[in-house]
Amino acid sequence: MHAITIPEPGGPEALVWAEVPDPQPGEGEVLVEVAASAVNRADIMQRQGFYDPPPGASPYPGLECSGRVAEVGPGVSGWSVGDEVCALLAGGGYAEKVVVPAGQLLPVPQGLDVKRAAALPEVVCTVWSNVFMVAHLRPGETLLVHGGSSGIGTMAIQLAKAVGAKVAVTAGTKEKLERCAELGADILINYREQDFVAEVKDATGGAGADVILDNMGAKYLDRNVQALAVNGRLAIIGMQGGRKGELNIGTLLAKRAAVSATSLRARPLEEKAAIVAAVKEHVWPLLAGGHVRPVVDREMPMSEAAEGHRVVEESGHIGKVLLVTS
Amino acid sequence: MHAITIPEPGGPEALVWAEVPDPQPGEGEVLVEVAASAVNRADIMQRQGFYDPPPGASPYPGLECSGRVAEVGPGVSGWSVGDEVCALLAGGGYAEKVVVPAGQLLPVPQGLDVKRAAALPEVVCTVWSNVFMVAHLRPGETLLVHGGSSGIGTMAIQLAKAVGAKVAVTAGTKEKLERCAELGADILINYREQDFVAEVKDATGGAGADVILDNMGAKYLDRNVQALAVNGRLAIIGMQGGRKGELNIGTLLAKRAAVSATSLRARPLEEKAAIVAAVKEHVWPLLAGGHVRPVVDREMPMSEAAEGHRVVEESGHIGKVLLVTS
Repeated sequence: MHAITIPEPGGPEALVWAEVPDPQPGEGEVLVEVAASAVNRADIMQRQGFYDPPPGASPYPGLECSGRVAEVGPGVSGWSVGDEVCALLAGGGYAEKVVVPAGQLLPVPQGLDVKRAAALPEVVCTVWSNVFMVAHLRPGETLLVHGGSSGIGTMAIQLAKAVGAKVAVTAGTKEKLERCAELGADILINYREQDFVAEVKDATGGAGADVILDNMGAKYLDRNVQALAVNGRLAIIGMQGGRKGELNIGTLLAKRAAVSATSLRARPLEEKAAIVAAVKEHVWPLLAGGHVRPVVDREMPMSEAAEGHRVVEESGHIGKVLLVTS
Repeated sequence: MHAITIPEPGGPEALVWAEVPDPQPGEGEVLVEVAASAVNRADIMQRQGFYDPPPGASPYPGLECSGRVAEVGPGVSGWSVGDEVCALLAGGGYAEKVVVPAGQLLPVPQGLDVKRAAALPEVVCTVWSNVFMVAHLRPGETLLVHGGSSGIGTMAIQLAKAVGAKVAVTAGTKEKLERCAELGADILINYREQDFVAEVKDATGGAGADVILDNMGAKYLDRNVQALAVNGRLAIIGMQGGRKGELNIGTLLAKRAAVSATSLRARPLEEKAAIVAAVKEHVWPLLAGGHVRPVVDREMPMSEAAEGHRVVEESGHIGKVLLVTS
């Protein structure tokens, strides 16, 4: 098969479409013939040499895919050759075939094109596990999503609205904020021109956000804590603004608030399977009903993954950038 | 009646035993004739002028008491004049009488002297709400308690052992660590001589603590995050080591860990009542069965509260310092 390999870490040109051996499904695994994968920021860090795959994972990038089951390994039930699926991966999605633990497979939601389903696993599992399983967003509460027009952001807006929450978003352009509004966002904040702490407080009668989904890490830590409501929960899923930040414990304590940080990739199989099962129960019906949909910026050939990385690095996209095999 | 007043903030001598008007119970409140109160660090901060009582609270210090019901206000059921009780207070425990919202009253546990019951409300509610309701300590997990010989610490050790957890404690003297061991602590760390991160990791096969109950705030923040296990929860309840500390979000994210901070005093009545109800359900049977007991360092007359504050400020105590009215 072909896969995107990284002979030497570096810029987008470090991604090389090359002939590699086919993977073989082991006990409890399924071989998927990939229709599409999608670009995640973690792939860019892996390309740059800053984020090695966890032990046992594929050396190729790609944290999610969609496609068809090509082979079912021993000990797997419930899946058959030819089934249309999408999957959460620890790596290896940028390839024509990939091996997946069965607990990380999901059916392609009813009515959705198989390629577009590649836009779902990482964002849906990230948003559901953080906003709902960790931070317990409830109906009537306010969620602040940083990077509202990203893949994560566009899904977070839709899921929070679907459960009856109010949604505030930050983004860097008017066009991106307009797309967020189309998806249901109630409070639109241009972080280049406005102070998100003041805007969120203003729009919530001074209360602040009950839950914040943050991809900036250190750079936003202090302001995120300021923007939290009493009993607020800050869920950090990225560190685009640095790893070490000052935490005002006094403010946190006065608000009885909490800060969590998670990633999906390093979780053990059973935790991933539990998240995938929760997503299937709670989010898949919303997708099948058309209440929530994947937001796809563009599709490009997987062999041109370098160009996909350039788009995401320049933040010129809205939603997900897909890499398709044919 | 008499109460400890604070005419001017300052050292222990700022506490003045003075004649003041009797409080009157309002709707949903009970008047308690106080047998004893107990010294908390928050009382010291209030005396120093750094921690004003929340709006509506008594101006006198004292976050807990025990005694007998002297009068039942309108709309209160389930309590009668003469009942032996203890109570969580927003203030006013350093007095001969205090008014308490009915939801913050607890019966004196079976077999316990009414005065000693004053050692319970603040520590039991703080430990239960943080270690169990927020951080969800589970059987088989490891709890690290800083200040293991404090009132909070001695209760945290006992409750964690009662649910089947392993307990690590820090304290500053051999004598204090020995008392922690008598209460059930498994891992004893002298913070003056040992590195608690290394000791906790060593005693848990490298895993770290699943839950940390911390009273130091900024000073321990980075080391607490280092000492956490994967999926670990740091619960901060005090800032004796400062308010602002550096949070290593990268470490937190790699561990999928969380930091929370709470206090009891500022919570709205319904949250306090929910905690008191949970404590009555889960902790009171352990006290009645003798599996858990209040640890009392000494009793002193309430009129000599200044001396009680000196003892706690010098950290010369183990468990609670009680202030008794007669």
